[in-house]
Amino acid sequence: MVNPFFKNNGPFKISELLKTLNIKDDGIDLNIEIHDINDLLNSKENEITFFHSKKYRNLANKTKASFCITFENLKIDLPKTCTPLIVENVLLSTSILTEKFYPSSINDEFDNSVKHIEETNYQKKTNFGKNVLIGDNVSIGSNCFIGHNSIIEKNVIIGSNCSIGSNVIIRNSLIHNNVKILDNCVIGKHGFGFFPKKDNNLRYPHIGIVIIEENCEIGCSSTIDRGSMSNTVVGKNTYLDNQIHIAHNVKIGKNSIIAGQVGIAGSSILGENVKIGGQAGISGHLKIGNNVEIGGGSGVIKDIPDNSKVMGYPAKNFRDFLKENR
Amino acid sequence: MVNPFFKNNGPFKISELLKTLNIKDDGIDLNIEIHDINDLLNSKENEITFFHSKKYRNLANKTKASFCITFENLKIDLPKTCTPLIVENVLLSTSILTEKFYPSSINDEFDNSVKHIEETNYQKKTNFGKNVLIGDNVSIGSNCFIGHNSIIEKNVIIGSNCSIGSNVIIRNSLIHNNVKILDNCVIGKHGFGFFPKKDNNLRYPHIGIVIIEENCEIGCSSTIDRGSMSNTVVGKNTYLDNQIHIAHNVKIGKNSIIAGQVGIAGSSILGENVKIGGQAGISGHLKIGNNVEIGGGSGVIKDIPDNSKVMGYPAKNFRDFLKENR
Amino acid sequence: MVNPFFKNNGPFKISELLKTLNIKDDGIDLNIEIHDINDLLNSKENEITFFHSKKYRNLANKTKASFCITFENLKIDLPKTCTPLIVENVLLSTSILTEKFYPSSINDEFDNSVKHIEETNYQKKTNFGKNVLIGDNVSIGSNCFIGHNSIIEKNVIIGSNCSIGSNVIIRNSLIHNNVKILDNCVIGKHGFGFFPKKDNNLRYPHIGIVIIEENCEIGCSSTIDRGSMSNTVVGKNTYLDNQIHIAHNVKIGKNSIIAGQVGIAGSSILGENVKIGGQAGISGHLKIGNNVEIGGGSGVIKDIPDNSKVMGYPAKNFRDFLKENR
Repeated sequence: MVNPFFKNNGPFKISELLKTLNIKDDGIDLNIEIHDINDLLNSKENEITFFHSKKYRNLANKTKASFCITFENLKIDLPKTCTPLIVENVLLSTSILTEKFYPSSINDEFDNSVKHIEETNYQKKTNFGKNVLIGDNVSIGSNCFIGHNSIIEKNVIIGSNCSIGSNVIIRNSLIHNNVKILDNCVIGKHGFGFFPKKDNNLRYPHIGIVIIEENCEIGCSSTIDRGSMSNTVVGKNTYLDNQIHIAHNVKIGKNSIIAGQVGIAGSSILGENVKIGGQAGISGHLKIGNNVEIGGGSGVIKDIPDNSKVMGYPAKNFRDFLKENR
Repeated sequence: MVNPFFKNNGPFKISELLKTLNIKDDGIDLNIEIHDINDLLNSKENEITFFHSKKYRNLANKTKASFCITFENLKIDLPKTCTPLIVENVLLSTSILTEKFYPSSINDEFDNSVKHIEETNYQKKTNFGKNVLIGDNVSIGSNCFIGHNSIIEKNVIIGSNCSIGSNVIIRNSLIHNNVKILDNCVIGKHGFGFFPKKDNNLRYPHIGIVIIEENCEIGCSSTIDRGSMSNTVVGKNTYLDNQIHIAHNVKIGKNSIIAGQVGIAGSSILGENVKIGGQAGISGHLKIGNNVEIGGGSGVIKDIPDNSKVMGYPAKNFRDFLKENR
Repeated sequence: MVNPFFKNNGPFKISELLKTLNIKDDGIDLNIEIHDINDLLNSKENEITFFHSKKYRNLANKTKASFCITFENLKIDLPKTCTPLIVENVLLSTSILTEKFYPSSINDEFDNSVKHIEETNYQKKTNFGKNVLIGDNVSIGSNCFIGHNSIIEKNVIIGSNCSIGSNVIIRNSLIHNNVKILDNCVIGKHGFGFFPKKDNNLRYPHIGIVIIEENCEIGCSSTIDRGSMSNTVVGKNTYLDNQIHIAHNVKIGKNSIIAGQVGIAGSSILGENVKIGGQAGISGHLKIGNNVEIGGGSGVIKDIPDNSKVMGYPAKNFRDFLKENR
């Protein structure tokens, strides 16, 4: 799929990519053209992918990528159709190539393509407040409301019957039908991802987007960061209260309810019908099952199976929490 | 009292209301006109109220409402002047009737009545920044300051000597004298209240408002939601730090001090002279006494009597907390 | 140093200051002119300082101030060149004199000196969005970006290669080179400091500023308050995620990483290379060493030595936390 938000500067010859990564070209056909960089699951022939942890062995087995940035000890899990490129730091090398393909995904300067909505086609089709700014190639469905001072940056797609509050900023996002995004939200900025480096950290590119499925409500002053390689997703009919922070790559299932000031760290995956009490926090890279209830104030630091109710810091079985705190 | 923020579409004949709720009309005079819907305490003759929990028996006893939406097992607590209307889900039925009386209280689209302050009467009376927007029927006292990009929506009342920061949004609120509301606050949006419904939750109406009494300060980027049936109130001379979230129907007594990033869930009632440390959370529907101190980071999940000092998650007696964590 | 943000209304004769504080003039030369008020470390001859806790005895010993507001029992620690002024409430008296020297530091009304950037010299030198407001005497380096609706108040200094997002408010701040401040931040408002007083708290002046050193990133919707007497400082190459609150006088060392929704209470000092997980909180007036790691959700209520790893509420040794929560 063509990424509508970040321009792909490829294709690049594999010889150029090897040079960028400072890798020797042992028996590789240097004329092969590489069209894109993608994750193990979604990459195709003539694309490059990355594989940095045993955890993803099952995906590595089946990847269709022609090349894979990986470690020496992981290369045996790749199919024969995929040539391993051995590096010292897989994520860093991946970041460097991603930036090569998508240089505009590193920085989030303000969108200077925006115009006042009165100067666009949307002035007749949309209900809008004062000082609304709309970027190039934005698409807005019928019967939408956009409040005062809100900014919809370039290429954003908004469905029908959506209501965007005032002082909202949306970029790099796909908003489905019947979504409400309340005042002061910031949706779609790059995530908090970088390689710590003395005196000058190295940001890594974020080519993922934010997808908010239909019938969602996002409370005031919430922030939802876009994904790095995959997307950040809020499932259908999920409601978020105020001051919530959803980090990059998080996926939240449908019909979930998340109370105020909750934070979900990067890359965690939540099932459907999850209920989270106020101020709870969920660490990164966790899997939270379907129908899970997490008590207010909890700190979740490990996976939670389906149909569980937990509370505490660290979060544990709800009855155990009550018993210990009688 | 006439609600200045939401237009009452009543009166309705009781026959129409019964039909809306799908209730049989056993011996009720179908011509009675119902003027309003209100809580047990405040409703009057020819109004309808609701009673959904034994906890409110003492109020139910004395209600002056002519009709009350309730459960079969609660109706014995109503006075003879109040006819019970038995339903399966009291809150849902109440929500449906509230929406019938106050259809505009469901959605919070931006206020399209606003004008640039330069086009209003306040341009001579108020100290204002750039791009300040003022809705219809707003009232602002003398010697007020309103910062850049702030939005005061229709019918809001602001006292004298108030200072509103920049990028602030105020709606459905009554702000008394000498109040400071710092930058980026959102005051008066509807609360996080709805009936979960598969694939399409049902929002419930919020006809309450936010009242901020005199001499208060509300820190940057805080959110205070308006009430559903009652009001959200911040008492006189109470100071809130930055990034605080106050949910619907919360009442905070006077002379209280609330540090940064605290969250107070819906319908909790706090006494006077309460001190709350940073990042503490208070669950919904609790009663916190006068002169209570709550340590930073605490999670309060039950009522706290007057003059107590608590800390911990869940919050307990402060000395016990210290002893256990020596 | 001349404070570029708050005008010093001095000098005042010591006789006038004694009168303001209601102190008798036992043998003091009433004609001495006092030029400024400052902390123990930084005050000079013909300035006045304050000393309110034994904790600062080592600084009191060496102060160069000519006068010092203090308690009877602390005065023996002052050098002979410094005349003690004995009061009942040192901080309150200090606040009163600070306000006398710097009356404009009490209130944070919006800056009415701002102009649209198109009307300033920066329109040719800076990349800017719509509706950007710039106050008097602002200094902006080369190659900066300032997003839509952002407000840079008077006297703020921004280095080169900085990127300010949209809807940002910056006042009383010094931003070094290569700093990114993302959308919706509020930087430089006065801290949450006041003397509780029945029905009408007394705010104390904040004459400190915010300093953000080079290569920092400040995440969306964060708030950084300026200092009261000293400054609030974010060290070089320190990255803050979204929705973080940094209170007045906090100092954060260089190369630190602070995840989303963290809060740091007033006057705490953090070392270099500190890592803090999401939603952690740090109480006020603490000292956190170099190379400290604080787990997500932790509540830190005492000092932490260099090279420690802690987690929990209250935060303890990381291994102990894991052991107790197996």
